[in-house]
Amino acid sequence: MAHPNPIRFGIIGCAEIARKLARAIGLAPNADIIAVGSRSKDKARRFIADNGLSVDYVTAYGSYEEVLEDSRVDAVYLPLPTSLHVRWATAAAGKGKHVLLEKPTALCVSDLDRILEACEAGGVQFMDSTMWMHHPRTGKMTELLADPTRFGQLRTVNSIFSFSANPDFLQNDIRVKPDLDALGSLGDAGWYCIRSILWAADYQLPSKAIALHNPVFNPAGVLLSCSSSLIWDDGKLATFHCSFLEHLTMEVTAVGSRGTLHLSDFVIPFEENSANFSFASDSGFNELVTGWQRLPSQHVVATDLPQEARMVSEFARMVGEIKNSGSKPVSKWPEITRKTQLVVDAVKTSIDKGFVPVDVVG
Amino acid sequence: MAHPNPIRFGIIGCAEIARKLARAIGLAPNADIIAVGSRSKDKARRFIADNGLSVDYVTAYGSYEEVLEDSRVDAVYLPLPTSLHVRWATAAAGKGKHVLLEKPTALCVSDLDRILEACEAGGVQFMDSTMWMHHPRTGKMTELLADPTRFGQLRTVNSIFSFSANPDFLQNDIRVKPDLDALGSLGDAGWYCIRSILWAADYQLPSKAIALHNPVFNPAGVLLSCSSSLIWDDGKLATFHCSFLEHLTMEVTAVGSRGTLHLSDFVIPFEENSANFSFASDSGFNELVTGWQRLPSQHVVATDLPQEARMVSEFARMVGEIKNSGSKPVSKWPEITRKTQLVVDAVKTSIDKGFVPVDVVG
Repeated sequence: MAHPNPIRFGIIGCAEIARKLARAIGLAPNADIIAVGSRSKDKARRFIADNGLSVDYVTAYGSYEEVLEDSRVDAVYLPLPTSLHVRWATAAAGKGKHVLLEKPTALCVSDLDRILEACEAGGVQFMDSTMWMHHPRTGKMTELLADPTRFGQLRTVNSIFSFSANPDFLQNDIRVKPDLDALGSLGDAGWYCIRSILWAADYQLPSKAIALHNPVFNPAGVLLSCSSSLIWDDGKLATFHCSFLEHLTMEVTAVGSRGTLHLSDFVIPFEENSANFSFASDSGFNELVTGWQRLPSQHVVATDLPQEARMVSEFARMVGEIKNSGSKPVSKWPEITRKTQLVVDAVKTSIDKGFVPVDVVG
Repeated sequence: MAHPNPIRFGIIGCAEIARKLARAIGLAPNADIIAVGSRSKDKARRFIADNGLSVDYVTAYGSYEEVLEDSRVDAVYLPLPTSLHVRWATAAAGKGKHVLLEKPTALCVSDLDRILEACEAGGVQFMDSTMWMHHPRTGKMTELLADPTRFGQLRTVNSIFSFSANPDFLQNDIRVKPDLDALGSLGDAGWYCIRSILWAADYQLPSKAIALHNPVFNPAGVLLSCSSSLIWDDGKLATFHCSFLEHLTMEVTAVGSRGTLHLSDFVIPFEENSANFSFASDSGFNELVTGWQRLPSQHVVATDLPQEARMVSEFARMVGEIKNSGSKPVSKWPEITRKTQLVVDAVKTSIDKGFVPVDVVG
């Protein structure tokens, strides 16, 4: 059933990831695409055609500015290279457009702050495009992690996101270009790892980041692989590893005083319609210590919409509240973004300074 | 079917873990228990009765020496506190008894070397009691890790072994006593983590250990929880976390250039008769990056004997070769033990020196 008053999106930039989001906006019941802007009108037209959008309904623009000038556009999705985020996210906010921004959101937190300040000044909703946050599995896991009886206090998290980039990616992808996405694997795969750790820690910032040895840089100085530890003053410890140079792996293990959570496809679930995780609580050994008691159980969480469509829908819902009911933008999402970026920055600094402990200062 | 000429074991010390091994020796087709030595004869008798051993067949001794003096005894299993290992393992080797030694094998590698030298001088087989090495699952996983097409080159390993010790353990167990098992959680749970990492790396020693922050000590200075990174000169990185203070967790994830291996019960399988692991190779995303292609597959490996009985059986087989065929002791096992101990030592030194990189010197 079509929403009576869907939020109208403009997509700014026709990156590969925009195809997935175009589909997601189409699937979200409360959102519509009405404009696509590219540096060339032909490219915008091709995107519209290639992604099954209606040429009668979706306007192709040959510049990003024109999308922002289109008064029908409520919100923009920005899949641009990170180095362009400040310019275009602040421009969008300045035009009163709500901002759904690809990750990494900025090259550093001071850049992000310019974006967030512009959104606040413009009274628009900001959210980063971290899709897995919006899967109902995440909500179910959040409940379990918050359960003092079943999970207890968080003690340790390990998160891994790696994939094996092909030679073309390692040569040409924006994520290996110092002028486009200077954070490399840390800003890309590492963003998800850091977010998963913050999520498991109920968004309590670590006090320090201490990067691990053996990062890999490309000849241009962009990170292709790196790892870090994060520590909290209460004794919690997290580690993560993010890489373009290894087999596809997407793991989170969170260990609490009373429970353990594990999943192997946290960023992009194996399948679109349902996702699993494993949870164990109060496990122990049998009397002779030859087997376990209370084995981990597998939880399956179905979803009617793919996680990226749920993300769009949640974003459009918030935008609708602002547009139609005069609500204020929800501060939760920019706050989570900023914490993620702060940790990204601290890890990068720790690597640059030779793996020294770096304070995570909010 | 009984073995015509089983290897005759003496158990020295009646620790809790000895119960599991007594059963394992009974299950192993080529091994028998014929003697149990404790500091009190009553305790040895009670152990024999409590574990369903035959009082007619198994001799109770009120000292460890008497077991070593019993000329019928081919091999000893030593479940003593670590601080007693040098004394009793060297004594056993001096009496020509083959040595199956509980882990951690020693407080430091120089102590271990005294044991290994005594075993070499005595011409006896040495093996540490790391049971999971002997599960057929481990053999199957070893094959996959060595497969250049399906797994490729190892890049990253993460290993976690934690359990939630009860107040009695934290007060009274030998593993929290500085005079008995000074290595605490590092020597106990950490031994397994380090072994799993070395195993995944085909026993190539890392060049350095760099401990992570936030170790936890008890008031007597014994480690209750700690973590470390290990690095190799070729770029490999491993991390591990071992703890007495968290929910039972036993994970290994090994990521290669072409495959990923994961298991959640590496030290003690969930169930005795079969064990699982997950292995993915050449995984990728579907075209819109909304799901995976080539999902991880679950492998189930059945075993006729529990892993500890397979360990005893393998040890007895080697002893039988020496005893009956004049073979030399197999050097593989003491070499693996020594590498594990070297890494334990380096991690401990790194913690003691404030998380500095410490060379792992063989």
